[in-house]
Amino acid sequence: MSDAYSKYFGALSDPTRRAIVETLARGGRSVSALAEPHDMALPTFLRHLQVLEKAGLVRTVKKGRVRICTLEVAGIMDMQGWLAWQREIWENRDS
Amino acid sequence: MSDAYSKYFGALSDPTRRAIVETLARGGRSVSALAEPHDMALPTFLRHLQVLEKAGLVRTVKKGRVRICTLEVAGIMDMQGWLAWQREIWENRDS
Repeated sequence: MSDAYSKYFGALSDPTRRAIVETLARGGRSVSALAEPHDMALPTFLRHLQVLEKAGLVRTVKKGRVRICTLEVAGIMDMQGWLAWQREIWENRDS
Repeated sequence: MSDAYSKYFGALSDPTRRAIVETLARGGRSVSALAEPHDMALPTFLRHLQVLEKAGLVRTVKKGRVRICTLEVAGIMDMQGWLAWQREIWENRDS
């Protein structure tokens, strides 16, 4: 689980990857539609996408000739939970 | 601001640094008390602490001969806000 959180937070440590999450929060997108607004070489973009997939924050499925990416919101919720927990402890701290 | 989020999330991508945040959520600690449970060389520990300081998640102040670390909870709240925003958009998505 510790490793999962390291991958989650590491995946969000890059502005391109956060932008991908922001786009996918609005709904599923093809890889090409997702790449389009990003001013970088496709292989570079695909490496960012792969970091998100390996972290379990994005899932990609083939629909015919098109690869469709969706957000895996469970990871977002896991991070929210960890942060909320720290904040709750902090608000009840004694020093 | 984008850079701030990259540093926040990057800082939490390591289990030692998350453990430091978990400890500091309970209240301020001296650097030595903070380092004590971690089975690693002090310079290695201090590098982790420095990543958290540079991200703005931990503040260290000198009190006499002792350096006291405290959690800067604003960064935790910023990350919570970004994640909550993505989740809200996701819950209202149309695809």
